[in-house]
Amino acid sequence: MPTKTNRQWCLSSRPAGIIEPSNFTWKEEPVPTLADGELLVRNIYLSLDPAAWGWMQDWVTYVPALAIGDVMHGITLGVVEESTNQRFNIGDLVYGLLGWEDYTVTNGVGLMRYQRDPSIPLPAYLSVFGLTGLTAYFGLLDIGKPKAGETIVVSAAAGAVGSIAGQIGKIKECRVVGLAGTDEKCNWLTDELGFDEAINYKTEKIRKSLMKQCPDGIDIYFENVGGPILNAVLTLINLQARIVLCGMISQYSSDDFGSGPNIANMIPKRARMQGFIVTDYFKRAKEAIEELKTWITENRIKYKVDIVEGLENAPTAIGKLFDGTNKGKLMIKVSEEP
Amino acid sequence: MPTKTNRQWCLSSRPAGIIEPSNFTWKEEPVPTLADGELLVRNIYLSLDPAAWGWMQDWVTYVPALAIGDVMHGITLGVVEESTNQRFNIGDLVYGLLGWEDYTVTNGVGLMRYQRDPSIPLPAYLSVFGLTGLTAYFGLLDIGKPKAGETIVVSAAAGAVGSIAGQIGKIKECRVVGLAGTDEKCNWLTDELGFDEAINYKTEKIRKSLMKQCPDGIDIYFENVGGPILNAVLTLINLQARIVLCGMISQYSSDDFGSGPNIANMIPKRARMQGFIVTDYFKRAKEAIEELKTWITENRIKYKVDIVEGLENAPTAIGKLFDGTNKGKLMIKVSEEP
Repeated sequence: MPTKTNRQWCLSSRPAGIIEPSNFTWKEEPVPTLADGELLVRNIYLSLDPAAWGWMQDWVTYVPALAIGDVMHGITLGVVEESTNQRFNIGDLVYGLLGWEDYTVTNGVGLMRYQRDPSIPLPAYLSVFGLTGLTAYFGLLDIGKPKAGETIVVSAAAGAVGSIAGQIGKIKECRVVGLAGTDEKCNWLTDELGFDEAINYKTEKIRKSLMKQCPDGIDIYFENVGGPILNAVLTLINLQARIVLCGMISQYSSDDFGSGPNIANMIPKRARMQGFIVTDYFKRAKEAIEELKTWITENRIKYKVDIVEGLENAPTAIGKLFDGTNKGKLMIKVSEEP
Repeated sequence: MPTKTNRQWCLSSRPAGIIEPSNFTWKEEPVPTLADGELLVRNIYLSLDPAAWGWMQDWVTYVPALAIGDVMHGITLGVVEESTNQRFNIGDLVYGLLGWEDYTVTNGVGLMRYQRDPSIPLPAYLSVFGLTGLTAYFGLLDIGKPKAGETIVVSAAAGAVGSIAGQIGKIKECRVVGLAGTDEKCNWLTDELGFDEAINYKTEKIRKSLMKQCPDGIDIYFENVGGPILNAVLTLINLQARIVLCGMISQYSSDDFGSGPNIANMIPKRARMQGFIVTDYFKRAKEAIEELKTWITENRIKYKVDIVEGLENAPTAIGKLFDGTNKGKLMIKVSEEP
């Protein structure tokens, strides 16, 4: 058997501000042979997520910390090409935390297997049925616990998580107000996705617009960005408000990592703020995927993917998450679909 | 019947920083006659609490906002001297939100009645069995949900709320670390109240000391002060940590009301931060008082009161809450015990 080449992006330095192409180095290696119980996954789509910033730091998050020189962590959808592991067969579609590379050798722990549904395009498994869709689903429903008639505010609402969270809020009969950084994105939220209102946080006064668009106050805030929006929201929360802490992308690239929102109003408002990580919910993924599938079939949830061709473009493409230019769930097409 | 004189402290201005004596004006008026269904309470002890700062602002908190000129709100323990209300008899001991005055006329709504227990000194009804004891009880147990072996950090630990919260933490078999502003207070916490460790936040480096005294991380933080302690705590929390937001006294007197702690670490740690107000728990007061009574009888909970004689001293005495000089639950003795 001719030895296959494995192209890889490895961590060369840790980002201080936003992720830069210079944080990665390119490496080409032969694909190693399998030990007993291992499998070889050919990565097809590589998901690019804001969480990557945390994975690149030298503190342990919810995934093992990377050493300099290690292959960069990434959620991928791939196909099993070789296997000495009884749980996985050649041709299985798998999904999990693998790497920025053509091929990954793994023992299969933590890897999910999908029955391919011909009605579902593969990129959906990395977006609405993947990390971002499940994040929106469990964050809004399990942490936010929306009740009909409540008002939900979503930041980064045109993003892969926020756009799904807001649409689920509408399904739950809430008033949903989204924040996004361009008028085009705002129009997409209200015209295509059914948000009640959208606020361009770059051109509008955030607190004033929130006051106007949330005349009954704010019951749930789905936080994807960190920074001044949360501060404004906290002045407008209702009794028993819930703040769903999903992401803080603005803080990842900020020098001012030390300060945060004024939380004093949470006391008289008996508010709850809660962080969560979607991996805690993987055992309930099936229930979410079933329900999301139904909603998509009924055209009540729409999603967008932004596919960049070629592993070699990953380090530059991930910058789109931080400058707001991606449109829909960002991913790299690493190799051809089976 | 000769008309009684009612001495009153009224709100003359709203505090920008800490509460100042100049925020109040003295008034003397005849006690009004009762309308049908009303009762006349002679106030015996007047509780002085940090919450007063919020009550003096022009925003509605969980009590009605005061207009300039109104009698200052205060929690008092009093005795019914006249009554045209069927629920209350002359001689009843009552407790509730009345005012900074000798006598209060009320319709009795929201007022609690105590069966006097001869073994319990009356000031205990304004401290360990009053607002502060119930705040510690429900805040720690209902919001914090301590489990044996966990580590609890309490700020303003020598205060009326913190000292009880910490002792309940010990009863629940947790490691309890308190922060206070003098060595004398710190010694009291460890030597008298059984805290595992105490940190003098004025002389020690907060984060370094917390790291040393909480070698297994922090599971529960009982927040009474706001400001930099919470920021340090948030860097040391464990998975599923709970932040009980009870009070933010340091922020009441701060110019920098706009910034707060960095909450980003709450996401990977799946932490929950929750505000609460003890009045929501009044319907469960009896269960707390019974349990606290048992613990006091068993000498597992100790409490201290700081009684200042004379209604005329209320505006100066309340300053002790903000400069840290009070020792135990601060209250004014307005009139003699029956």
